[in-house]
This record gives sequence, C-alpha cells and structure tokens, in this order.
Amino acid sequence: MNDTPNAELLEFFDSPTEAPFVIEHVHDEFTSVCPKTGHPDFGTVTVRYVPRAVCVELKSLKLYFQDFRNRGIFYEAVTNQVRDDLARTMSPAWLQVVTEWKGRGGFRSRIIATHGEVPAQWLKG
Amino acid sequence: MNDTPNAELLEFFDSPTEAPFVIEHVHDEFTSVCPKTGHPDFGTVTVRYVPRAVCVELKSLKLYFQDFRNRGIFYEAVTNQVRDDLARTMSPAWLQVVTEWKGRGGFRSRIIATHGEVPAQWLKG
Amino acid sequence: MNDTPNAELLEFFDSPTEAPFVIEHVHDEFTSVCPKTGHPDFGTVTVRYVPRAVCVELKSLKLYFQDFRNRGIFYEAVTNQVRDDLARTMSPAWLQVVTEWKGRGGFRSRIIATHGEVPAQWLKG
Amino acid sequence: MNDTPNAELLEFFDSPTEAPFVIEHVHDEFTSVCPKTGHPDFGTVTVRYVPRAVCVELKSLKLYFQDFRNRGIFYEAVTNQVRDDLARTMSPAWLQVVTEWKGRGGFRSRIIATHGEVPAQWLKG
Amino acid sequence: MNDTPNAELLEFFDSPTEAPFVIEHVHDEFTSVCPKTGHPDFGTVTVRYVPRAVCVELKSLKLYFQDFRNRGIFYEAVTNQVRDDLARTMSPAWLQVVTEWKGRGGFRSRIIATHGEVPAQWLKG
Amino acid sequence: MNDTPNAELLEFFDSPTEAPFVIEHVHDEFTSVCPKTGHPDFGTVTVRYVPRAVCVELKSLKLYFQDFRNRGIFYEAVTNQVRDDLARTMSPAWLQVVTEWKGRGGFRSRIIATHGEVPAQWLKG
Amino acid sequence: MNDTPNAELLEFFDSPTEAPFVIEHVHDEFTSVCPKTGHPDFGTVTVRYVPRAVCVELKSLKLYFQDFRNRGIFYEAVTNQVRDDLARTMSPAWLQVVTEWKGRGGFRSRIIATHGEVPAQWLKG
Amino acid sequence: MNDTPNAELLEFFDSPTEAPFVIEHVHDEFTSVCPKTGHPDFGTVTVRYVPRAVCVELKSLKLYFQDFRNRGIFYEAVTNQVRDDLARTMSPAWLQVVTEWKGRGGFRSRIIATHGEVPAQWLKG
Amino acid sequence: MNDTPNAELLEFFDSPTEAPFVIEHVHDEFTSVCPKTGHPDFGTVTVRYVPRAVCVELKSLKLYFQDFRNRGIFYEAVTNQVRDDLARTMSPAWLQVVTEWKGRGGFRSRIIATHGEVPAQWLKG
Amino acid sequence: MNDTPNAELLEFFDSPTEAPFVIEHVHDEFTSVCPKTGHPDFGTVTVRYVPRAVCVELKSLKLYFQDFRNRGIFYEAVTNQVRDDLARTMSPAWLQVVTEWKGRGGFRSRIIATHGEVPAQWLKG
Repeated sequence: MNDTPNAELLEFFDSPTEAPFVIEHVHDEFTSVCPKTGHPDFGTVTVRYVPRAVCVELKSLKLYFQDFRNRGIFYEAVTNQVRDDLARTMSPAWLQVVTEWKGRGGFRSRIIATHGEVPAQWLKG
Repeated sequence: MNDTPNAELLEFFDSPTEAPFVIEHVHDEFTSVCPKTGHPDFGTVTVRYVPRAVCVELKSLKLYFQDFRNRGIFYEAVTNQVRDDLARTMSPAWLQVVTEWKGRGGFRSRIIATHGEVPAQWLKG
Repeated sequence: MNDTPNAELLEFFDSPTEAPFVIEHVHDEFTSVCPKTGHPDFGTVTVRYVPRAVCVELKSLKLYFQDFRNRGIFYEAVTNQVRDDLARTMSPAWLQVVTEWKGRGGFRSRIIATHGEVPAQWLKG
Repeated sequence: MNDTPNAELLEFFDSPTEAPFVIEHVHDEFTSVCPKTGHPDFGTVTVRYVPRAVCVELKSLKLYFQDFRNRGIFYEAVTNQVRDDLARTMSPAWLQVVTEWKGRGGFRSRIIATHGEVPAQWLKG
Repeated sequence: MNDTPNAELLEFFDSPTEAPFVIEHVHDEFTSVCPKTGHPDFGTVTVRYVPRAVCVELKSLKLYFQDFRNRGIFYEAVTNQVRDDLARTMSPAWLQVVTEWKGRGGFRSRIIATHGEVPAQWLKG
Repeated sequence: MNDTPNAELLEFFDSPTEAPFVIEHVHDEFTSVCPKTGHPDFGTVTVRYVPRAVCVELKSLKLYFQDFRNRGIFYEAVTNQVRDDLARTMSPAWLQVVTEWKGRGGFRSRIIATHGEVPAQWLKG
Repeated sequence: MNDTPNAELLEFFDSPTEAPFVIEHVHDEFTSVCPKTGHPDFGTVTVRYVPRAVCVELKSLKLYFQDFRNRGIFYEAVTNQVRDDLARTMSPAWLQVVTEWKGRGGFRSRIIATHGEVPAQWLKG
Repeated sequence: MNDTPNAELLEFFDSPTEAPFVIEHVHDEFTSVCPKTGHPDFGTVTVRYVPRAVCVELKSLKLYFQDFRNRGIFYEAVTNQVRDDLARTMSPAWLQVVTEWKGRGGFRSRIIATHGEVPAQWLKG
Repeated sequence: MNDTPNAELLEFFDSPTEAPFVIEHVHDEFTSVCPKTGHPDFGTVTVRYVPRAVCVELKSLKLYFQDFRNRGIFYEAVTNQVRDDLARTMSPAWLQVVTEWKGRGGFRSRIIATHGEVPAQWLKG
Repeated sequence: MNDTPNAELLEFFDSPTEAPFVIEHVHDEFTSVCPKTGHPDFGTVTVRYVPRAVCVELKSLKLYFQDFRNRGIFYEAVTNQVRDDLARTMSPAWLQVVTEWKGRGGFRSRIIATHGEVPAQWLKG
C-alpha cells in the first residue's frame, strides 16, 4: 500500500476570462483506506478556487480522486495532499480544500486547508 | 451547434426608484449542452443586482436563458457569458451571477462571477 | 385598478423602551395582481426595523397589506412602496423590507429595500 | 391580570472560570397572554450571555419564565423585560434576548434586545 | 462520584504539515451525570482547532470523552474542562470547544469556550 | 359578495389513452374570503382523478380557482364545491379533492372530499 | 385546580353536504398542567372526523382547548376527554383524536383515541 | 416538431435471476416542450418494474429520455408513451411510470400509468 | 457487569378509560454497553401499546431505561428484554418495542419486537 | 477482477429468543466497481430479516460487504447475490435486501430482492 496519489492524472484548460471568478467542485464519492485499521474511509471533498490562468478539468479531477481508493492515508494527510497537488499544478489565486468524513466511533470530522488569500468575491457573496 | 446566446432577447424597464435596492432572480430550469460529450447539462442560475437606471424584464430573461437550450457551452463559460451580457446591457451598480449544476460523475459544481462592488445593503442584510 | 395602497391604515404605539432593539414581522399571506398579465402574485413580506419612538401595530399592518389584494403592482414597486410608507410614517432608526415571490415561469424572485443604517445589534447577533 | 413577572425567582451560581465564555439557553415552551385580545401567545425565548461573575441557574430561569403564563404582556415588552431583569440581576459582560412568536393572522414575529458589547468569541465562532 | 476526567487518556501525533490548517471533530455520543439530580445528561461536543505541532489522536479523544460517562459535572464545567485539558496538552494555535445539550424541562443549552485567536482561514472560509 | 364560483370556466381535452391512469394537480396559490370575518383565507388545493373520457385543461383549472379570489366561502364548502363541479363536468372514474389551509388562531385544517371508488393503481402504487 | 374542561364552549354548524367527507383540524398551541408536578405541559391536538349532521365551529373549538390551560390533567385523560366530549356533542360517523406532547425527561409521547369505524375515504386517500 | 420519441434507442440485458425482484430508476433530468406554448417542461420520470426476462440498460434508457428533449408533447402523453414503449419492448411482469412536473402557473402535476399487477414484494416491502 | 435490568423499577397507574386506545412513548436517551467491545451504545427506544387495565408511569419507565446504562447487553437482547418485561408486568392488549441504534462501522440498526395482535386503531389511523 | 464476494466471511450467533422479531441493518458505505466502465459505484445496502435460529454478526457483515470493494459487479447482481448468500447461510423466516445507488447520468436506482413471506409484524408496525 502506497499513500502517494498520482497528481499527473490532473489536466487543465485555459480560464475563459481574465476577470477573477470563483469555481467550486463538490465530490461526495471519495474513499481511501485508514492506514491504522485497514478499514475504508468515506468522505466528501470540496475544492474551491479562483483560477489565475487555468482551470482543472473535471474528469481528470475525478480520476485523481479515484486514485486514492486503495491507498492508506489519514484524513489530515488527504486534505493537505490535495491542497498541495492543486496549488502546485495550477497556481490558483486562491484555493481551499475541505474534507468531510463519515462517522467513526461517534465522531464526524472536517479538515480545511487553504492556499493564498481568500478573494473578495467569495467573502462578499 | 453555436455557443453564443442571443443577448438581444433581453428587455429592460426603468427602475421604480433612485434609492439603491437589491433584486434577485433564481431560475431553476436552465439547460444547455456539454460541448465535449454532447449530453445535456442542467442547473440553476441566480442573478443578483443593484439597478443603476434599468431593471431586466423577467419574461425576456427567461427567453434569453431558454436560448442556451441547444447550445454547446461549458459551465464556466455560461456563467461568465451571462455576467458579461447583463453587465453590458443594463450597467448595474453591482451584479453577481451564480450557477449551480446537477451532479456529474459524483461532482456538483458552482461558479460565481461578479461585476462591480457589492452593495452595503446586501452585506448588512 | 389603482396601484396605490392606503398607508392611512397603519397605526402605531409607543416603543416600550428607549434602548434600541430590533423587531421583525414576517407575513406569508401577501397577494397582489400583476399589472401586465392580470394574474395574482403571491409572496412573503418581511419587515425588520429599529424603532425610534413608535412601533407599528400588527393588526393595522395586516390590514395595510390586505389593501394590496386587488391592486395591480409589480414586485419591485411593492417593495419600495412598503419601505417608503413605513419610513415616512414611523421614522425608524433602521428599516429593511424583503419580499420573496412564488415561482413564475421557472423563476423565484426576492427584492430588498432599506432605509437608514443597519444597527450593530442586527449585525452582531 | 398583572404584567410584572417575578424576577426574584431567578437564582445564580458562580461561574466555573474567569476566562470569558458564551452560554446559550433556548426555551421553546414560553406562553403569556395578549393584553388586547385575552388570547394566549406562544413563543421561544433564547438567552445568550457572557457571564461576568455568575451564571443563571436553569431551573430558576424556567420558574421565572413560567411566571409569565397568565400575565397580559405584549411581545416587545416581554423581550425588554427579560433583558432588563437578567442584566440587572447578573451583570453579564454581554446579554442578548431573542423572542420568536408563533403565527398570528398570517404573521410570525421576532424581537431582539441586547445589553453590552457582543463578545469576540461569539462573532468569531 | 468524581468529576475530574482523566486527561492522560489523550494521545497525539505530529501534524502532517507546518502550514496552518483547521481540524474539526464532532462527537454526538457524549454523556455525563448531573451532579444535582443524579440523572444522565446527553450532548454533542465539537472540538475545532489549528494545530501548532501536534494533532489529537481520534480514538484517544473518544476514550477521554467516554471517561466522563459516570462523572457528576455541570454543562459549563464540562465545556471549560475540555478546553483546558486540550489547550494544556496540545498547545494549539486556536481551539474552540462547543457543547450542545439535549432538552431539559423545555430548555436546550449550548456553551462555547475558546483558547487563542481565531484563524483567518476559519473566518474567511 | 357571491359564493358561487363559475364552473363554466373549466375546459377539457380528450384523454390520450383508454387505459386507466391517475392524474394529480396541486395548486398552492388558492385564496378566498372568510364569510364570517371578511379576512382572506389561503390554502393549497389538490385534485386527483382517473379520467373516464376527458381530462381538465390546466389553464382553465387555474382560472376556475382564481374565480374564488374575492368570494366569501368556508373551507368545507370550497372543498365540496370543487368536488361537485369537477365530478359533474368531467364524470371521472374517481376524483379526490383535498384542501389544506394556512394557520388561523393556532389551527391548520385539511378537508377531503371524494367521488367514486379509489382506483387500484392509486392504492397499489 | 379542576380537571374538567367546559364542553359547553363547543358550537356547531350544519354540514354543507350529505355526502361523507373528512375534516382534520391540527391545533399546535395546546397547554395544560401536570397534576403531579404542577409544571405546564405543551402539545399538539389533532381532531379528524366524518360529520354525520354537524361540524364543530373552529373558534369554539379553540376556546374549548384554551379552557384546559390551567387545569391539572394527564396526557391520557386529555385525549380521552376530548374524544368523549366531541363524540357526545356532534355524533360523528368517525372521530379520531391524536395528542403529541413535547419532550419530558428524554421522552416524547403520543396518544390516539378513536370513536366509530374509520371511513373508507380516509384509508383509501 | 414531432412528438414520437425513438423507442429503438432502448437496449436490454438478461435478468440475473429467475426469482422476481423489483427495479426502480429515478431520472430527474427530463425535459420536453409544451406543444401549446412552445416553452420547455421539466420533470422527474420514475420507472419501477419486475422483469420477466430482460432488464432495461440504464444508458440506453437515458438516451431514450434525452430523445424527448425537443419534442412537443403533453404531460399525460409522455407518461402513457413511456409506459407503452417499455411494456411493449421488455414485457415486464409489472411496470409503473410516474412523472412529476415542475410548477407552472401555481400548479405541480404528477401522472401515474401502470401495466400489469403490482407485485407482492412491492406492496409488502 | 450484569446484563439484567431491574424490572421492579416499573410502576403503573389505572387506565383512564375502558375503551381501547393507543399510547406511544419515544425515549431518545437510551444507552447501554456493548458486551463484546466494552464501548457504549446509544439509541432510541419506542414503546407502543394498548393498555388492558394499567398504563406504565413515565418516570418509572425512565428509571428502568436508565438502569441499562452500565450493563453489557446486545441490541437484540435489549429489545426482547424490554418487550418481555413490559408484557409480563402490564399485560397489554398489544405491545411493540422498537429500538434504533446510532451508527457503528457504517451501520445503523433497528430491532422490532411485538406482543399480541396489532389494534385496528393503529392500522387504520 | 472477480465478481464473487466471499460469503465465508459471514458469522452468526444464536437468536436471543424463539419469538419472531424483525432486525434491520442499514449500511451506507457500500462500494463496488462497474464492470462496464471500471468506475466505482457507491450505495446503501439495507438488510431486513426475521431470524429462524441465528442472527448475522454485524462486524462479519461489514467485512462481507467490504469484500465487494474492488469487484466488478452490476447493481442488480449485487442485490441478488446478497439475498442469496444470506438466505443460504442463515435460513431466515423472511429476508429483504434493498440497494440504493448514488446518481449516475441523472439516474438514481433502487433494487429490492426478497426471500420468504413478509412477517405480520413488519406489515403491522
């Protein structure tokens, strides 16, 4: 079991405008494996960003997330890994990754990792 | 297939007051066609604005949205196109266009494009 | 058909305190008539204010709203008219009128008109 | 019928810490009598505060609220009375009283009365 | 009956990144005993924090919360105790503990205790 | 004020099939006037039927319902009148009229009037 | 304290039709007093019936329910008393009284008392 | 504009078992055109059946539904057409088609068409 | 750890009427201990019955349920034990015990145990 | 890829009573792989049964469901396979397996497979 997903699966297209705008993709079919217990984890991953030059292509983002399916990786590491991979590959003006996890032993968890300054549009809308 | 909707369908009426106020129209019957797969996309389009001199007439806005029905156009482009068409034709003090799209391959998406400064009324109410 | 409702129906009582406080009344039985189609419109009208000296009496507010029942008047005009009538007759420190309208042709609409500066209590609570 | 509830019913205990923190109690079984119609009113009363030295004991707060049961008192007066009684008897760093009332003649109402400056913790949480 | 839970049950692991991020754990199976009536209390405990160097291990947090099961301790004390134990043992950059309690005698209660300054990410996201 | 709505507004079209099937129309913009108090009533009217030869045309049903707008008529009478008018004019195999009324003095009401035997399809689905 | 409400408050009007139909009134502002603890109880009372000759007048039903306000009477007795009073005074073809009570000590309760045979319309609709 | 969809788009696969079982597919992206007004209609189509020998392949069902996109056809005709096409092409032991339509002029509509006897499993589960 | 709760805690009062009626108590604060893992279980217990001569007193039912708090007992055994204890001690005409358990390892569970024939009132209402 | 899950993972324990009762387990973390597209499917599997002599042990049921994680198998086959495996290994008096699948291409699906006669307790409760 190898906990490094394949960021090379990600593909990008040019942003349709130079005016800043906000994109949000919510994926509620995320699953990985707990490295400690070997049991699967299930969660929702939300990606919000303001593109600088490129946008992430949705199908490639899906394949990138599917690549976590049989990897052993903790909640906190998934969240920071996705933030790092997307920040490095598309250099957004702002990026926020939120993961929300199904209940384990009476707990629900949520992790939030951010890159760059939150855009005025997001705050104000 | 031609991805340019007809902005000439839009009609306007004089704002009933010079005092600034906020108008929001939510249209949950938007459909266009994905240029990549040829399959239809379905979504909700929300238009929020502070009129400067004119307001958009609701029936003409409906016809303008219906004009996207058989056009091939991506989520991001729909959102920026509506923002640009409305900003150009009615010169609002503020305008925000939000599109929310039904699930595709385990993803829900939302795009937010803005024109002008958000009004204090919207922030404070 | 005459689109001017009767603001003389409104009655007031002295505010029970000099300390500023916020009052909100939500009326979900508003109906008027569309001047263009002649069909009835249905909506919810919310009035929020900080009284300066007087409060609006609830039953008189109901009669004032019922007076719109058979008048031909657009969404935007209803909202600004209620704001103007209440601002003029009770001189509140702050007043906000929000109208929310049932769906027409796939659209739901909301209009927000304000008078005066929003009170710190409303923002902070 | 006497509209002055008995604030002497309220009892207090020492705050368990000197560090500021926020307490919220929501009571959804409040009833009093409309002084105009003689019909009962039903509502929810929410008390939020930052204690300075003492906290209000929950059972005594319940008895204090039950003492309104057969009193004739308007919505606005209930809200300001509770704010005044609690502000005077426990000197909180911040206090907010919110009352929400069941529908009467197509209206739902909400009244908000505050004492002191809102704490940063409440804003930021 | 002894109202001091065992903070030594808590275990920690190194944060996977030096970049600040937010972690939230919601535990909806908390129970303790009311010291006054001897009846059990039931609630939800939410822990939100920005780690400085370590994160709390989820299973140890569960055992720590289970250790309250038969202790006699008031709502306000539970909240401040959890805040103090976690602040002392993991020195987070920010920590917020929120407890929400099931209805007692027509009341629902919520207590919020905080340590440190709220992070910009939490406010802005 | 005259409480007899105009059933001649109703129009019909031929059923598209001879096989029995169920049609349900829910109209949530019904309003009439209480003959006792003169205040407006607001409700939802649901019509369910199995056509024998004809179906009611939706726009004509809307005009028929709008014709109640300023008539003075009680809940129970509205329900039986709609049942009688539709049963007489379209001779359905089964017809059920359900009216649901907004709150008055702490009450919500529902009235159900039926014509003919309930179809197996409705029961079994 | 006397637990016998005043059934003479009830008034009736002639049923508008001889064809059987179902009437349901839901009253969510019921309150009485627990004879054991002296604390108020709060609940919702639903009355469903098929009239034989008369219907209960809604305002008189409200006054009859308000008459329980300061009486000491248990949940089970309220339900059976309302069933008995309405069955005796209006001789319905069918009558069902359902009471639903707010939480007490972690319990919610519901009591159902019936008179006569359930009508086919109710079952089939 | 031609209102006959293309049933030849439908494809089938062998049922995985001879034991009867129930399949339900809910498609909430149905759109066709109103033949009277030329405006698009939007709805949800639910297909429930017990296969006799074959099951409908999901992607082919999607293409069949997409084929209605630009056809002019009424609610009632859509429902009966789908029932007839599926009954003829896969000879199910039981089939039920339910269409639910977005609001038009204050109305929501639902149409139910059935083929064959409802299976005991559906009733009993 | 002893898995036999104390049925002697249960107390009863005479039914207020000889006419059959249905009583339902829902307790959402049930907790016991898993005999296998030693971890606490949390659930809701619903008791529905038609009394023959006596009703269970609500406070005694609460104490009886609290007596499970530290006992090691499985879901299925809790449900059958409550059914047996209540059937033996109050000889109801009908009794149904439903337990619903919070998630464990991705599962939610519900157990239903019954005594006697279901009353027509329950089925028909 | 092999579509036969391992039924030998299932373990059983003796039913705690000879009186028939109903058990329901809802697992909302089911995932398998679509044999056609290779993409993962996500769903909820509900198992309801009346034990004859043994009950399925919950942890073993979880491992059995996890064994589908990387198998290529269609919705309909999953449902019938689970029904067959559980019917064969525990010989229940009644068994029902319901699978509900997340949206694919605008469709949500549900499959219901049953073994034996539905128990009166399930129908009547």
